[in-house]
Amino acid sequence: MHDADLDPAREKLIRESIDRQTMLATLGVEVAEVGAGRVVLELPFRGDICQQNGFVHAGAITTVADSACGYAAQTLMPEGSDVLSVEFKVNLLRPAVGERFRAEAAVVRAGRTLTVCSADVFALAADGSSKQIALMQATMTTVHPAPRPAS
Amino acid sequence: MHDADLDPAREKLIRESIDRQTMLATLGVEVAEVGAGRVVLELPFRGDICQQNGFVHAGAITTVADSACGYAAQTLMPEGSDVLSVEFKVNLLRPAVGERFRAEAAVVRAGRTLTVCSADVFALAADGSSKQIALMQATMTTVHPAPRPAS
Amino acid sequence: MHDADLDPAREKLIRESIDRQTMLATLGVEVAEVGAGRVVLELPFRGDICQQNGFVHAGAITTVADSACGYAAQTLMPEGSDVLSVEFKVNLLRPAVGERFRAEAAVVRAGRTLTVCSADVFALAADGSSKQIALMQATMTTVHPAPRPAS
Amino acid sequence: MHDADLDPAREKLIRESIDRQTMLATLGVEVAEVGAGRVVLELPFRGDICQQNGFVHAGAITTVADSACGYAAQTLMPEGSDVLSVEFKVNLLRPAVGERFRAEAAVVRAGRTLTVCSADVFALAADGSSKQIALMQATMTTVHPAPRPAS
Repeated sequence: MHDADLDPAREKLIRESIDRQTMLATLGVEVAEVGAGRVVLELPFRGDICQQNGFVHAGAITTVADSACGYAAQTLMPEGSDVLSVEFKVNLLRPAVGERFRAEAAVVRAGRTLTVCSADVFALAADGSSKQIALMQATMTTVHPAPRPAS
Repeated sequence: MHDADLDPAREKLIRESIDRQTMLATLGVEVAEVGAGRVVLELPFRGDICQQNGFVHAGAITTVADSACGYAAQTLMPEGSDVLSVEFKVNLLRPAVGERFRAEAAVVRAGRTLTVCSADVFALAADGSSKQIALMQATMTTVHPAPRPAS
Repeated sequence: MHDADLDPAREKLIRESIDRQTMLATLGVEVAEVGAGRVVLELPFRGDICQQNGFVHAGAITTVADSACGYAAQTLMPEGSDVLSVEFKVNLLRPAVGERFRAEAAVVRAGRTLTVCSADVFALAADGSSKQIALMQATMTTVHPAPRPAS
Repeated sequence: MHDADLDPAREKLIRESIDRQTMLATLGVEVAEVGAGRVVLELPFRGDICQQNGFVHAGAITTVADSACGYAAQTLMPEGSDVLSVEFKVNLLRPAVGERFRAEAAVVRAGRTLTVCSADVFALAADGSSKQIALMQATMTTVHPAPRPAS
C-alpha cells in the first residue's frame, strides 16, 4: 500500500532512532530495509536468546516484529513526532528454528493518532529456504513531542 | 483460581526449565514465585534492554510475561509434557519506567491441549510504589513429549 | 479498581446510548449493571444466534463483551464525549452453552485518549451454576464530539 | 497460499454448515465465495445491526469475519471434522459505514490441530468504491467428531 520511497533525511532519522534501541543491539538485530510504510529487521540466531528447547524465544521474535511495526508506522507520521506501541498480538505459527529471522512490517492503516501495522516473521534456513513462523497485528500511537523517561 | 501448592519435585523441574531459557538469562530475569497455576518473574531495569526513549522495550516486557504465562500453564499440565506459546496479545498501559518489572501470570482455563493465561506486568519504583504497565492474554499448548529443534 | 458510584444523570445518558445500539436489541441483550468503570450486560440464549452446532455464536458473545467494555470505558470519559472500539481480542474458553451469557467489563487503565478494558463472559446454567466461557482484552478511544455516519 | 479449487462435495458440506449458523441468517449474511483455504462472506447494511452512532456494530463485523475464518480453516481440515474458534483479535480501522461489508478470510497456516487465519473486512459504498475497515487474526481448532451442545 505504501511503496513510495522515503526521504533520505527522514530515513536517516529513523535509522538513528533504531540505533538508540539498546534492546535491538543486545539481541543483535540488523536493519534490512527502511521504506515509506515498510521496515524489515533481521535477527541472526544466537544460542543466548532461546527458550527451553533451543528455539528462539517468542519474546525475541516479538521484539523484532514490534520494532519493525513501530518504525514502519513512524515513517508515515509527521516529522518531529515519536512512536509508542499501544498493543500487539502475535500468532506463533511454527517453532523459531533457523539461521536468521526476518520481520517484514507494513502499515495497514495510518490514522492521525493511531496506526495499525502487520508484520510477517520468517525463519531463513542455511539452504536459503524460508518459512513464516509468526504473524503480528499491532497498533502504534504518534507521540508529540518525543517522550522522555522520568529521571 | 489455582492456589494449591505445587509439588516440590514438579517445582524443581519447572525452575530447571526456566533456567534453560537462555533469553531470560540474557535479559537478567529472576524467578520470584512458582506455584500451581501461577508464576511470577521479575526483570530488573538495565540500560541495554530499552527502546529509543530509554523506556524498557515492549519486547523485553513481553518476554517476561510470555515466560511467566508459559510456566504457569505448565504447572497444570501432565508431567513429562512441555509447553509452547500459541499466541499472545499485549496491551501496553504506560511506558515501562521503573527499577524492576514484575510479571504475574495466572491460568484462566486449563484445557487438555490448550491453556489460556493472563499476566499483569507492574513497574516497581525505587520508593516502593508500583503501577501496572502491561496486560497479556495468552494461549499455551501442551506438547508430548518435549520437542527438539532440528539439528 | 473503579467502584465509586456513577452520577445518576451520567448513568441515564449511558443507558440511553446503550438503547441506541440496535444490534443489542436485535440480539436481545439486557443491561444488568452500569457503574463507574464497570458495565455488565446479559444475553439470554436464543436459537437464532447460534453457530453450526447450536452453541451461541462467538460473534454474539463478542458483541456483548465489546459493548460492555465500550460503555465501561465511557463512564470514565469526559462528559459529552463518545466512545469507539479500537481493537479487541477474545479467547473462547468453552463452547457457549447456557441459559444466559453475562459479560462483566471493567476498566483496567483509563488514559486521556485510550482506555484499556477487560471483560469476562460467563455462561449461566438453569441450575444457577456459572462457568467462564470467554475473556476479552480491548482498547477503546474517546471521540470528541460524538461522530455521525456520512449520509 | 491456498488457491486450489475445493472439491464440490466438500464445498456443499461447508455451505450447508454455514446455513446452520442461525446467527448469520439473523444478521442477513450472504456467502460470496467458498474455496480451498479461502471464504468470503458479505453483510448488507441494515439499521438494526448498528451501534449508538449508526455505524454497523463491531460485533456484527466480527461475526462475519469469525465465520469466514472458521470456514476457510475448515476447508483444509480432514473430512468429517468440525471447527471451533479458539481466539481472535480484531483491529477496527474505520467506522463501519457502507452499503455492504465484505469479509475475505484466508488460511495463513494449517496445522494438525490449530489453524491460523486472517481476514480483511471491507466496506463497499454505493459508488462501487471500497475501504478496509477491519482486520482479524484468528486461531481455529479442529474438532473430532462434530460437537453437540449438552441437552
